[in-house]
Amino acid sequence: MKLSVFVGTSLDGFIARKNGEYDFLPVDESEPHGYDEFLASVDTILIGRNTFEVVLKLPSWPYGDKRVIVLSHRPLHRAGITRHVERMSGAPAEIVTELRASGAKHVYVDGGITIQGFLGSGQIHRLTIHRHPVLIGTGIPLFGSVLQDIKLRHVGTRQYKNGVVTTDYEVIN
Amino acid sequence: MKLSVFVGTSLDGFIARKNGEYDFLPVDESEPHGYDEFLASVDTILIGRNTFEVVLKLPSWPYGDKRVIVLSHRPLHRAGITRHVERMSGAPAEIVTELRASGAKHVYVDGGITIQGFLGSGQIHRLTIHRHPVLIGTGIPLFGSVLQDIKLRHVGTRQYKNGVVTTDYEVIN
Repeated sequence: MKLSVFVGTSLDGFIARKNGEYDFLPVDESEPHGYDEFLASVDTILIGRNTFEVVLKLPSWPYGDKRVIVLSHRPLHRAGITRHVERMSGAPAEIVTELRASGAKHVYVDGGITIQGFLGSGQIHRLTIHRHPVLIGTGIPLFGSVLQDIKLRHVGTRQYKNGVVTTDYEVIN
Repeated sequence: MKLSVFVGTSLDGFIARKNGEYDFLPVDESEPHGYDEFLASVDTILIGRNTFEVVLKLPSWPYGDKRVIVLSHRPLHRAGITRHVERMSGAPAEIVTELRASGAKHVYVDGGITIQGFLGSGQIHRLTIHRHPVLIGTGIPLFGSVLQDIKLRHVGTRQYKNGVVTTDYEVIN
């Protein structure tokens, strides 16, 4: 089983402003950055409760028929959700064991706290980072503390006309 | 007059560990990243006191015969320094005015606090960031708070065999 991160950040490493807005990460429909192909490659989406709350407010459900796991210690308010959504809670290693046992093959890990937790505990295999050419100074950071240095292997980098630089890394364990 | 930043960081945006060490930014002599050409293009180096203290401990003076300005409110200990070193203090805009009046044409701004101060007050024109494929979790960050979003223009990105990804940006004012 593989766990991947696919995320947009400001040049100073924020995935959202403190209030959760991500207006500084414009979507340029005319120049796809590989999201559709990435989403097609995963079977499970793993997000934290904060990200789930943001997703609920979107005009449409963004994950199609994919299995969605929400990490939370509290029950989910499922009003209006007809999609496949489950709740799990526990340490990253426990969640990974549970996901593997349930047949997950490729998991898309999203949301600041969730990414930090799984990365910090060595559970992430691949990172795709889309760096947007703007500094916002403060917000929700992509990265957090780690127990020890985490070395990565640079897989490839591509640049887009709108100034976004996308880099793929594999985590070296 | 132009002010430029040319700096190596971890993927999570640190230019040094908390103790000032930068062992996670290995120098690969076999694969130059453009530092010599950059240094040749500047006439003045502007650093903070912390960076100056680090530089003093290096086996050799790294700035050749370039004019070096150290930002500090306290006198400098010049023991053993025979090179051109001056001290200045003041707000970034005042320093820029003083540098321009003194004939500086291209200033290399280095050191975390100094970069953050000059960038945050809109005085930096160009950024070259060498991103190394490692997460260290904590340390001295390249970027800090800004008064408002700072938009950048992506000039170009190149990748190196050792996994370093270098991007040039121009600050849009």
